Amino acid sequence: MTQADGFEQVEYGVQRERRPLKIALAQIDTCVGDLDGNADKVMDFSRMAAKGGALLVVFPEMTLTGYPIEDLALRATFRRAAWDKANELAGRLSQEALGGLYVVVGTVGTDRENGLPRNRMVVLHAGAVWGAYDKHFLPNYGVFDEFRIFSAGDRSVVLTIDGQRIGLAICEDIWQDGGPVEALASRKVDLLLTINGSPYEEGKGHVRRGLAARRAREVGAPVVYVNQVGGQDDLIFDGGSFVMGADGRLLQHLPQFKEELGYWTLPAAGEEPRPGSHLASDLEADEEVYRACVLGLRDYMRKNGFRGVCLGLSGGIDSALVATMAADACGGGNVWGISMPSMYSSDGSKDDAAELARNLGAHYEVQPIEGLFAAFQGQLALEGVAAENLQARIRGVIVMAYSNRLGLLALATGNKSELACGYSTIYGDAVGGYAPIKDLLKTRVWKLARWRNAQAQAAGESEPIPVSSITKAPSAELREGQKDSDSLPDYAVLDQVLEAYIEKAHGRADLMSDGFDRETVDTVMRLVDRAEWKRRQYPLGPKVTALAFGRDRRLPVTNAFRE
Amino acid sequence: MTQADGFEQVEYGVQRERRPLKIALAQIDTCVGDLDGNADKVMDFSRMAAKGGALLVVFPEMTLTGYPIEDLALRATFRRAAWDKANELAGRLSQEALGGLYVVVGTVGTDRENGLPRNRMVVLHAGAVWGAYDKHFLPNYGVFDEFRIFSAGDRSVVLTIDGQRIGLAICEDIWQDGGPVEALASRKVDLLLTINGSPYEEGKGHVRRGLAARRAREVGAPVVYVNQVGGQDDLIFDGGSFVMGADGRLLQHLPQFKEELGYWTLPAAGEEPRPGSHLASDLEADEEVYRACVLGLRDYMRKNGFRGVCLGLSGGIDSALVATMAADACGGGNVWGISMPSMYSSDGSKDDAAELARNLGAHYEVQPIEGLFAAFQGQLALEGVAAENLQARIRGVIVMAYSNRLGLLALATGNKSELACGYSTIYGDAVGGYAPIKDLLKTRVWKLARWRNAQAQAAGESEPIPVSSITKAPSAELREGQKDSDSLPDYAVLDQVLEAYIEKAHGRADLMSDGFDRETVDTVMRLVDRAEWKRRQYPLGPKVTALAFGRDRRLPVTNAFRE
Repeated sequence: MTQADGFEQVEYGVQRERRPLKIALAQIDTCVGDLDGNADKVMDFSRMAAKGGALLVVFPEMTLTGYPIEDLALRATFRRAAWDKANELAGRLSQEALGGLYVVVGTVGTDRENGLPRNRMVVLHAGAVWGAYDKHFLPNYGVFDEFRIFSAGDRSVVLTIDGQRIGLAICEDIWQDGGPVEALASRKVDLLLTINGSPYEEGKGHVRRGLAARRAREVGAPVVYVNQVGGQDDLIFDGGSFVMGADGRLLQHLPQFKEELGYWTLPAAGEEPRPGSHLASDLEADEEVYRACVLGLRDYMRKNGFRGVCLGLSGGIDSALVATMAADACGGGNVWGISMPSMYSSDGSKDDAAELARNLGAHYEVQPIEGLFAAFQGQLALEGVAAENLQARIRGVIVMAYSNRLGLLALATGNKSELACGYSTIYGDAVGGYAPIKDLLKTRVWKLARWRNAQAQAAGESEPIPVSSITKAPSAELREGQKDSDSLPDYAVLDQVLEAYIEKAHGRADLMSDGFDRETVDTVMRLVDRAEWKRRQYPLGPKVTALAFGRDRRLPVTNAFRE
Repeated sequence: MTQADGFEQVEYGVQRERRPLKIALAQIDTCVGDLDGNADKVMDFSRMAAKGGALLVVFPEMTLTGYPIEDLALRATFRRAAWDKANELAGRLSQEALGGLYVVVGTVGTDRENGLPRNRMVVLHAGAVWGAYDKHFLPNYGVFDEFRIFSAGDRSVVLTIDGQRIGLAICEDIWQDGGPVEALASRKVDLLLTINGSPYEEGKGHVRRGLAARRAREVGAPVVYVNQVGGQDDLIFDGGSFVMGADGRLLQHLPQFKEELGYWTLPAAGEEPRPGSHLASDLEADEEVYRACVLGLRDYMRKNGFRGVCLGLSGGIDSALVATMAADACGGGNVWGISMPSMYSSDGSKDDAAELARNLGAHYEVQPIEGLFAAFQGQLALEGVAAENLQARIRGVIVMAYSNRLGLLALATGNKSELACGYSTIYGDAVGGYAPIKDLLKTRVWKLARWRNAQAQAAGESEPIPVSSITKAPSAELREGQKDSDSLPDYAVLDQVLEAYIEKAHGRADLMSDGFDRETVDTVMRLVDRAEWKRRQYPLGPKVTALAFGRDRRLPVTNAFRE
């Protein structure tokens, strides 16, 4: 690890008597590559913050560029455009008489020594780009690839505004020991300010706040933590920005899953920090996950320019939950539910699908597949699993026909348990541009469906999801009398094994000592390994690479940058 | 960069008078995760090398584990199994009276300080694992993600065998300045030994040898460079191992694209190094690329357990070239070519498809899609591009039916030009587990087809690819009279723009100053950006993640590891 004393120590601003500093936490939803749209949003929130009496306005990590920008950072043309945009924005603020504000935004910079991109924080003030801090710790695990893309900053920066000494950090800088935050501990700061793009994980709010409390203690000053909010490609950012006192008291807390402008005042010298009013409280677990899924889908649609979605409605719980989330994301009138019954579909299933669509106010279309199946079978005469896959693929063709004809986003309805076990047909039910519940285990799917119905009931509305979709035994209905339990262990057990094998990376011996019986362990491991292989064996196909032979460029899906 | 003098300097072996050292370069094809199979191959080649009189046998990077192993390295159970396998192998060598050999293999190790994996080279000798060197520079660009996975070695290692002082390096260690190779320059070595997993790129052999010549000069000793050979997932390794003298003379050179055991003798003190016999010469460009494609497909089939392939034969050049490559990879009798004519298919196309199959000795099946198309249209009544996509998707369903029924690997036949421009149907012609020509521009496809026919003629065989498939104007034949040139610029120009925009990351202004006209530049950029977006928007779908929300685990496709 780099030593704390290895950092160049930089000071911006004038030292003077500390006056109370009103800070606006601007928790906004940016879009990758959309320099214009993101800059406009910074203007809007800065105007509001100025009206609210704030002097310092703080936006999330990589505000102007969106986050994460992946290999887009490597395009020199994009970095030039981002630099121009930061300067233009400083000018606009000044022209609107907002030049007195200190507006902290994230953007992409360039390392002067080697020309590599940097993850940068800049301060817009008095019509100019004033002061810069570059992220030091570049996360390179899990969903993060920053070390691959950025070069690391090596300066410890303190910014003085109205006599208040503010130490700067970007996201991962507070998650690692040492580095610029440790260097700040000896520099007598009045505040530690961190801007973040911290993706949602269940219960992560507690972890972030506990970590901030530790850093606040270390530097002996409160921590202002501003997080981005919104779905971006396959990540969801939950917001939940906050201010944490050096004594571990929560001084401000913004809600999750929505844009918000919150305020907090850093007091004058000798005064005690006081909590803001209306601190958001934490959400209950099922609500938190449900709202994360809805936000992820809504933003994916918006950032990719979709107004509506289409999906197959089987009458089962997975498609019912996805359709309900979609109706919550874009309104029932923008949801096309397609019932595609076969000779194996029960009447109950068809009724449940129709009832769901009615409850949601969704379009409901019936496209029987018996005739189409017979036409294929007249030429192919498939048997067994091949014949089951054929049914699923005919449905995939129909869903894509609606997508193409009406410009709808096709939704895949698979859950994590069945996907992990390969209980799904490639190019069949796996067809779709977005899969809202791919990260939810089946037992969680049931819980969320019950939660959503209960929530409707509590609000005096009728329950969206037919009760029989929740209570009946799950079935793919691809052959007579088929049940999931013919092929998979009971979901209550399966989900526990999957959690241990996938999330915790437990090996075979570990799983046995976790208390699972050998047959179940071997079944699940075989299914998961085989499914993993099949998924990789049938990629969408051909990705176009920047190399003669090799993997694809890593560009974000919702890249809105146009040269 | 880490300083050369920052490395712990380690010595293994006994200093004594230098004797001539016969070295075997074992250029083998490993399989990721197949510890047993890879170890068996090390035994086989070590036996041969001992018979050939070698004392030192050198295998490629990560021999035992296969390369690249991606996140598999993070599974502790896998690292334990690899460690056990190295020890078992040392024991087997000794039991077969090969314990006197010095067998250099790559494997995965564990950093004792932090428990992270390391990219390690070990020497098996006298029944034990003797000496270790850990890779210092971990490439983190293009197809490489090593910094994400491994921790970096920090020792500079010299191994003495029969008085010869051998400095060690692994792949990227010689591509970066500084580091352990720089540290070796002052340690008086008689040889620099590097083991590699260097993926194929066109013309890369010259670059590698030029680099090795520079390093040989720097350390004042010859360089032995052993590269792996074979296809692994989406990468192809071409072999081409060599020995380079300190004076820049090529002293040994093994052929590309095949396993090989080559010898070279490091002379005694005071004697001049002499070249080996039968140095391989470089291949002509088209042959090199063609053989790379065939090897990639052959190994993908073998490592994933496929005996045969199926693909749609349209009569066009792309499917003709792919079928010919497939016949070269697995024999014509293991290729199922499926003609799926529609009302828009010309008689010429059908004839060309049938002739091709005859030439290759492939299975030839005809599955007309008119009736199936009519059945769907009776329900859906699609128009325009939606109706064109429907035809392609019906063909995708048929190709997958053959794949499912006969256990065949479905091949996608798209080339890089059309894929880059999105001139392809998702879940239609893009269906497949492997896409042999996805990295070839259309102009290259024509060149390879002509080369393959010329090669057959030169060998006194009949030409496999019908001449009219090469000469006719390309068409998707999805509507009456359709030609590629209706939608795309002329391929000769298009391919040049694609190369500049994708490979060189030229922006709009750069492309204009490259001399392309504005209309073409704007057309191509719009097509590529839109296609990139669509490809990401319709992933195969749901990948199962190790995180609550996030990207997929990065496991290799052909992971053969079973706990």
